Amino acid sequence: MWKPDRTTKKPLYQQIVDYLERRISYGELPPGSLLPSERKLAEQLGVNRSTIIQAYEELRASGLVESTVGSGTRVSLTKWGIAPKHTPNWRSYTDGGTFLPNLPLMRRIREVLRNGEKLIDLASGELSPDLFPNSIIHTLLQQDPFQEYLGYDDPQGYYPLRSALTSFLLQHHNMNTTESSVLITSGSQQSLYLITQCLLSPGDAVAIEDPSYSYSLPMFQSAGLRIFRLPVYNNGIEPDDIVKLYRQHRIRMIFLNPNYHNPTGTTLDPAKRVQLLDIASKLGIPIVEDDPFSLTSFEGVPPVTLKSMDTDGLVLYIGSLSKIAASGLRIGWMIAPQSVVKRLSDARQQMDFGLSIVSQWLAERLLRSPQFDLHITKLRHALEQKQQLMVNALTDILRDKVTFTPPQGGLNLWCKINLKIDDSKLLEEAIKRGVVFVPGSVYGSEQGYVRLSFAKPHVDEIGAGIAGLAHALKRY
Amino acid sequence: MWKPDRTTKKPLYQQIVDYLERRISYGELPPGSLLPSERKLAEQLGVNRSTIIQAYEELRASGLVESTVGSGTRVSLTKWGIAPKHTPNWRSYTDGGTFLPNLPLMRRIREVLRNGEKLIDLASGELSPDLFPNSIIHTLLQQDPFQEYLGYDDPQGYYPLRSALTSFLLQHHNMNTTESSVLITSGSQQSLYLITQCLLSPGDAVAIEDPSYSYSLPMFQSAGLRIFRLPVYNNGIEPDDIVKLYRQHRIRMIFLNPNYHNPTGTTLDPAKRVQLLDIASKLGIPIVEDDPFSLTSFEGVPPVTLKSMDTDGLVLYIGSLSKIAASGLRIGWMIAPQSVVKRLSDARQQMDFGLSIVSQWLAERLLRSPQFDLHITKLRHALEQKQQLMVNALTDILRDKVTFTPPQGGLNLWCKINLKIDDSKLLEEAIKRGVVFVPGSVYGSEQGYVRLSFAKPHVDEIGAGIAGLAHALKRY
Repeated sequence: MWKPDRTTKKPLYQQIVDYLERRISYGELPPGSLLPSERKLAEQLGVNRSTIIQAYEELRASGLVESTVGSGTRVSLTKWGIAPKHTPNWRSYTDGGTFLPNLPLMRRIREVLRNGEKLIDLASGELSPDLFPNSIIHTLLQQDPFQEYLGYDDPQGYYPLRSALTSFLLQHHNMNTTESSVLITSGSQQSLYLITQCLLSPGDAVAIEDPSYSYSLPMFQSAGLRIFRLPVYNNGIEPDDIVKLYRQHRIRMIFLNPNYHNPTGTTLDPAKRVQLLDIASKLGIPIVEDDPFSLTSFEGVPPVTLKSMDTDGLVLYIGSLSKIAASGLRIGWMIAPQSVVKRLSDARQQMDFGLSIVSQWLAERLLRSPQFDLHITKLRHALEQKQQLMVNALTDILRDKVTFTPPQGGLNLWCKINLKIDDSKLLEEAIKRGVVFVPGSVYGSEQGYVRLSFAKPHVDEIGAGIAGLAHALKRY
Repeated sequence: MWKPDRTTKKPLYQQIVDYLERRISYGELPPGSLLPSERKLAEQLGVNRSTIIQAYEELRASGLVESTVGSGTRVSLTKWGIAPKHTPNWRSYTDGGTFLPNLPLMRRIREVLRNGEKLIDLASGELSPDLFPNSIIHTLLQQDPFQEYLGYDDPQGYYPLRSALTSFLLQHHNMNTTESSVLITSGSQQSLYLITQCLLSPGDAVAIEDPSYSYSLPMFQSAGLRIFRLPVYNNGIEPDDIVKLYRQHRIRMIFLNPNYHNPTGTTLDPAKRVQLLDIASKLGIPIVEDDPFSLTSFEGVPPVTLKSMDTDGLVLYIGSLSKIAASGLRIGWMIAPQSVVKRLSDARQQMDFGLSIVSQWLAERLLRSPQFDLHITKLRHALEQKQQLMVNALTDILRDKVTFTPPQGGLNLWCKINLKIDDSKLLEEAIKRGVVFVPGSVYGSEQGYVRLSFAKPHVDEIGAGIAGLAHALKRY
C-alpha cells in the first residue's frame, strides 16, 4: 500500500493530507466513509500518531472530513461545496452476499503481516523466498522464447501442462492418469472451491478431519454444507468413524489431507488407507484427497497417495506447486473422473475463464526441467533443517510448557501449550513481541493449540520467533 | 484433446482401444460410465465411424465395455474380473451444485469449436492471433529478467500493475484513481462473478440491458438474483426506465456495457449518461460499468466512461486486456470504492488466492511499454477493416435478408435476419457448412437475431463465413 516518501522535503503530514484528498476526490472514499483511527493509520503508514493527528486536523479545517467523539473521523457529506447526493449505502452491499468473508482471526493475521514489516512470520504456510526456484524460473523465462497461442485457453487447462503433469504424477506418485482427467486450477484453494460449488448442494453433509485447514475456509459454510468431524489421531483418522457418520447423516463426501496433515502433521497409516478406500467404495462416497505436502517428505519417500491406490475412480486428487515450488505461481491441479472434470471446467469458465497461458506455459517448463528434481531435494533438506531449528528452540526455551510430535514432512509444527490459554489473546501478546502464528482454534481445534510454520521464517529468525512466543506465554 | 497418431504403423482402431483401456483402468471412466456415441467419438477424434465401431467391438470382446441397444455403450461394472464395487454415482454429483452449468447453446458452440478444426469462427468474441501483441510480449519476457517475489500476492493484486493501471486509466480514459481502489481480476468475467457473489444476496433485484452478454452467463441465476430488463435502443438504454424498475422492484444494482455494447454495438448517448448518473445517484443505486471495448474506438476517441464522470463513487468500473491485447493473459481490473475492493479481495482470496505474479508482472510491463499505444492503434485499424469486410460481404451476399448498423468500435456486428428463423436451428445448419456464430437468443433477445464477430476470423475467412451463413439461410 501507499507509504509517505521520506526522501522529499514535503512534510509527512502534508503528504498524507494530499493522499487522502486524492482518494476522497476520486470517489474511492465516498461521502460518509469512515477513516481509520489515528492509531491504526499511524501503524499502517509507519509514522507517529502525532503526524496523523496533524493531517486529520488539516482535513477537518478544509471541511473535507468531520470528526465526532466516539464515532471517529468520516468523509464529509458536503464536500467541495457540492450539494450532498445519495451515494449508495456501500455498507449494506459489502455486508451482504452469499459468500462469507474470511474468519476475523485470519483477517487480523493477514492485516498484521501486510502492514508490520519487521514481524517474524510463523503463521503463513508457505516457503521462504530463498526456497523458491527463482533461478530456474529466471532461466526458463530468458531461454525459451514464448510463442504460445494467446487466445482463450481450453477450460481444462493448457494441454502441454496437463501432459507434463501426467509424467510428473507417474514419476513422483506412481499415479496413472491421462491429460483428459487433469483439470488445471489456480491452486488447491480453487479446486476445493469448485468442488463445494459444483458437486455439492446446500444441506449436503460432508466429513472433514478435526482439526483441519478446511475450518479456516468459510467456503464450506458459504456453500451451505453440513460439516461433520473425523477426529485425527496420531496415525490419522479412524475409517470406521466414516461408517458411523454415514449411518447418522448420509455424508456425501469426505475431505482428507492424509499426508503431513495440516495443521497436525500426522500421516494416515497405510493399513488405514486400504480400509478407508474399501469403506468409501462400499458406501459409494467420494474422497477428496488434498495433497499439497507429500513431496516435502524429509526422507524423500512420499507417502503412497490414496489416488494411486484407487481402482474405482472415487478419489478426487488435489495437488499444487504452492508448497513445493512457489505459491505466487498459482498453479494447482485436480485429477478426477471425466464427468467431474467436465462439470468443473464448465463452471470455472464462468467464474474466471481459466488461467493465464503465460503462467501455465512456465509451469510446464518448470515441471519438465531437469533442475526441478534437484530443487525438490534441496527443499526437503532445507525444510528438515528448519524444522530441527524450531524443535531445538522449543525444547531449549519452552521445554515442558509445550508438547509436539515433529512430522517427517510438511511445513508446520502443531504444538499443544500445557497452560490454560486463550489462543487469540496469546496471538495479540505475540504480535506485540513481533511474532505471528496461527491459533489452533482457526482449524477447529479446542483451545491450547498453536500452528507454528517453520517454512516461511528465515533460518536466523526461527529461534527469535520461539523466544517471542515464550515471552508472550510469560503472561500466563 | 487426444488424437490418434497417424504417423505410426499401429492401426487407428487399436490406438483408440488402448486409449480407452487406459482411461478406464485409471478410473477416469469409472464402471458404468457412458462412452460417447460412435458418431460423436468419430467426430471428436477425426476418424471414420467404422474405425470407432471396430474399436468398440474390440472393447466389448475384452469385456471391458457393454453395449445395449438404445442406452449406448458403457464401461462394464465387472472389469478385469474384479468384483463390482459401489463407485460413487458421479452423475448425482455433477448434476448437483448451486453453481449452474453454461447454457446448452454455449456449450454446443464451444464443443464444436474445440473439436472441428476447419470451422470459420464468427462466434468467439476475441481477437485473431495476428492481432495479439505477440512480439511485444516475446521481447518483454526475454529482455526484463524476472526477479519478483514468488510468495502469496497482495489479495488486491500486484502493486506495480495497479500502479501502471492508474496511469493507463488516466491517459486513455481521463480517469482519476489510486492503487488502493484497483482490484486485479482474471478478467471482466471474474469481476462480475465477485460482484454477484459478494455484494448481492439471493432475491435481490438487478437491472440488466436487454439484450445483454450477461444473459449468456448463468452466474446471475446461480446467485439467485431477480433480473429486470432495460431495453437497449439505438442510443442505448432509457434512464427513465430505471426509475420505473426501482419503484416496482427496488432494484439494487444496474449492470451496463455502455460503450460498443455487447451484442448490439450501440453506445450510450452522452446526454443520457449525465441523466443516468443523476438518477442512479438520487436513488443511491450503484452502476456496474463493464467496459471491455472502448479502446477499440475506430476513430481513436473512446467514449467518455461513466466512471470518469462519477463524482459520488457509485460506479464499479470493469476493464480488461482480453479485447484490447489478448484474452489468454487473463488480466482484468475493477475500480471501486475502498470498502468494496476490500470485501471482494477478501472473498477472492478464498476462491483462488489471486493471480500468478508472472502474468501480472508481464501485464505491468505491457501497459508501460511504449509499444502498447502503437499496438492499440494498429488494432483499431485492423478491426475497422475487418468490420468493413463483413459489412461488404453481408451487403453483397445477403442484401435485404439482413439489417444491421455497423458500430464505430467493438468486435461484433448485430444482425437482424429478415426471415422467420429458429436461431438454434440456423446455427446447426451453419455448422454443417463450416460456420459458427452466436444466436441472439443466447443474449436474451427475441428470435431472428445473430451476433457475428469479425475479430476472430482471419481477413480471408470473413467472406466465406458470410457465404456459409447465406447457404444455411437458403433452407428458409
